Amino acid sequence: MKKRVAVIGAGPSGLAQLRAFQSAAQKGAEIPEVVCFEKQSNWGGLWNYTWRTGLDENGEPVHCSMYRYLWTNGPKEGLEFADYSFEEHFGKQIASYPPRAVMFDYIEGRVERAGVRDWIRFSTVVRNVEYEMETGDFTVTVHDLAADHVYKERFDHVIVASGHFSTPNVPEYEGFSTFNGRIIHAHDFRDAREFAGKDVLVMGSSYSAEDIGSQCWKYGAKSVTSCYRSAPMGFNWPDNWEEKPALEKLAGKTAIFSDGTEKDVDAIILCTGYKHYFPFLPDDLRLKTANRLAAADLYKGVVWVHNPKLFYLGMQDQWFTFNMFDAQAWYVRDIIMDRIEVPADKQALMADVREREEREDAGETQKYAIKYQGDYVKELIAETDYPSFDVDGACEAFYEWKAHKAEDIMGFRNHSYRSVITGTMAPAHHTPWKLALDDSMAAYLQN
Amino acid sequence: MKKRVAVIGAGPSGLAQLRAFQSAAQKGAEIPEVVCFEKQSNWGGLWNYTWRTGLDENGEPVHCSMYRYLWTNGPKEGLEFADYSFEEHFGKQIASYPPRAVMFDYIEGRVERAGVRDWIRFSTVVRNVEYEMETGDFTVTVHDLAADHVYKERFDHVIVASGHFSTPNVPEYEGFSTFNGRIIHAHDFRDAREFAGKDVLVMGSSYSAEDIGSQCWKYGAKSVTSCYRSAPMGFNWPDNWEEKPALEKLAGKTAIFSDGTEKDVDAIILCTGYKHYFPFLPDDLRLKTANRLAAADLYKGVVWVHNPKLFYLGMQDQWFTFNMFDAQAWYVRDIIMDRIEVPADKQALMADVREREEREDAGETQKYAIKYQGDYVKELIAETDYPSFDVDGACEAFYEWKAHKAEDIMGFRNHSYRSVITGTMAPAHHTPWKLALDDSMAAYLQN
Repeated sequence: MKKRVAVIGAGPSGLAQLRAFQSAAQKGAEIPEVVCFEKQSNWGGLWNYTWRTGLDENGEPVHCSMYRYLWTNGPKEGLEFADYSFEEHFGKQIASYPPRAVMFDYIEGRVERAGVRDWIRFSTVVRNVEYEMETGDFTVTVHDLAADHVYKERFDHVIVASGHFSTPNVPEYEGFSTFNGRIIHAHDFRDAREFAGKDVLVMGSSYSAEDIGSQCWKYGAKSVTSCYRSAPMGFNWPDNWEEKPALEKLAGKTAIFSDGTEKDVDAIILCTGYKHYFPFLPDDLRLKTANRLAAADLYKGVVWVHNPKLFYLGMQDQWFTFNMFDAQAWYVRDIIMDRIEVPADKQALMADVREREEREDAGETQKYAIKYQGDYVKELIAETDYPSFDVDGACEAFYEWKAHKAEDIMGFRNHSYRSVITGTMAPAHHTPWKLALDDSMAAYLQN
Repeated sequence: MKKRVAVIGAGPSGLAQLRAFQSAAQKGAEIPEVVCFEKQSNWGGLWNYTWRTGLDENGEPVHCSMYRYLWTNGPKEGLEFADYSFEEHFGKQIASYPPRAVMFDYIEGRVERAGVRDWIRFSTVVRNVEYEMETGDFTVTVHDLAADHVYKERFDHVIVASGHFSTPNVPEYEGFSTFNGRIIHAHDFRDAREFAGKDVLVMGSSYSAEDIGSQCWKYGAKSVTSCYRSAPMGFNWPDNWEEKPALEKLAGKTAIFSDGTEKDVDAIILCTGYKHYFPFLPDDLRLKTANRLAAADLYKGVVWVHNPKLFYLGMQDQWFTFNMFDAQAWYVRDIIMDRIEVPADKQALMADVREREEREDAGETQKYAIKYQGDYVKELIAETDYPSFDVDGACEAFYEWKAHKAEDIMGFRNHSYRSVITGTMAPAHHTPWKLALDDSMAAYLQN
């Protein structure tokens, strides 16, 4: 009897898992039966854009947190698949900060070639996963939304790849319930043009705040005000962008900050982060972790220490993304295919987690964090046949990117970097980011 | 051993069920143990307003579909509790179309007096219900969101009172994904002032379209365009409101209708209805019905014909609301307490459903439908100790209301009706609806 493996989610992590198994099969190995359950009607996870917000066409929470005009906020040279370069996909090297549609095309290209689409049951949401001690396997309950049919299947392994940037963390402040303007979380932000001519308050100081604020600025917001709880982003903002300390409350349309200053605003965008959220998992299988590099309770960052037949992909905070998901997926595949052994002693698994946590906590700089995660990627790929690549070179691209942002937050995307997969330098984009209003693939590929 | 009853939802239907059991206990009967699971942190269901849209503070779909400035769209004399009049609650008779806050206060008043709040487990969402053939009872899996703890309990009966106006039906039209304005479903509409000065397209021709369009008009929209698939609402709209046939597509910000006419719009509000949606129920327990007066597969409109230990409240399309939920709740209580017998023969149950469907289909007018549902309410209350009231009188109020709307869609709420519970005439409200911008309870009760 073949092992059966359930993969939950067909975004970058889940697709990496399918590609990992397919790659082994291609090399002649006998692989388990892999079934991927995807809530959306197409693959790509967050990269599968929709205009919808809130609940989707089936009444399920919309997975997409992306928005129109989104370009990658880090250089593509830091996330390139080691087994499928941008040049291989596009037939040429392309500029370093592709818009969403270009990235979607790239992600899709690899898995189309791998021929794994029919491993995926689309429009099928996982409702429940339970582990049966007696039989030593999982019962997975899913809802086929197209057929409106709920059914159960048994699996030897479950791999949770459902992401952690889809369930918004939405705080409430005094005055929100009587504010006459719009209040949305970044998760529901779709089109910056809706905010043209408006005074926008962006709450938060991480990537969403930085990028959504920049989008609003680029597409004509009258002013952008951002506010932070711990520290300002500190970039050289344009004249009509001001950073404020924490919001204290609203009084009508007036935002009042902790330093006593005020600003009248028309709209509020909560860039207040996301939650790890797994409504389909019982207590004994459910990851509860902060958004950090050393995720809680995951041996080697992927194996659930309380039941090593269960895996999680991509649950860390992320500098590295696609290539890290690949490293994880290849690693998980090799555990399932008995090529890598997980220690039987739970204490050993937990010691591994502790060591990672302590090592993360030992450094404070972004450079330390980038290198820490680069080392993690190296550690995993050293144990599988995932093509090794110049991880340190990718780290260098990240360091440069950080410097470019500090120089010019509205100009950093005009820079180019060298691919660590093919060694080719990316071309400069034909138009500076702040003037490039058309984010289509056709426009971007005109280099 | 006492029977255990699970009630899913603490909105008007679920609260009616708690009040029904408490009322029996008050009269000296021994009642089952009743546990009500409520996803929100407070009771009131749809009437529990929140500024939040999409997903709530726990990552669950927001239940609320109400909006600021909402007044009841039918006279309160059609929905008054027979065991708790408006006069009893407010200490005086009040005008006929109370705003949401007033209604919430009224709903809350009855159950506060009944002392049933501690039967409710708040912030607890039901994840799964399964019927065990062997033991003849239900296993209910719930997620305590505050404690982030999933647990299971067994119940002899389950009563589904989770509503059917919270999961939006959201169609897609050509051009939606490239429209630069805002597109929301009525479910996510909160504050009409956001649309002041804008050209608003309201899609649909039922209550949401009528009322949300009217709100936008009242609070200063530049124009309202509504469009219908089958028939226009046909009211005497203000000059800046136009009814159009079905939307064909968008081209940029231009809405193009099936008659070839066009209108440039800034925002689109989809008043395209709601879905019956029960993600916590397996196939054998899950109601699948159109939004109609004779809901599918429910004997007497409440008993699940495929397993009569399971009940649904309020799943019909509704003219009658609170008092109908009461009639249903008292009826279900009496089945559970063995005061009313459900026929053992499934064919008899299904024949009852068929008879109701055929009788509904036999008439076409709104008056027929109102009387049909009035007769249903009478049928149920005749079998329990729910206080009988003048249902025909309530029907008369509905007929009058329809006539008042036909006369003046922006003025119908200025009319008053006589309570069928206390016989008192409601006072005229101090301010015509279209001039009454303050919807607070304090403002409304100033009569």
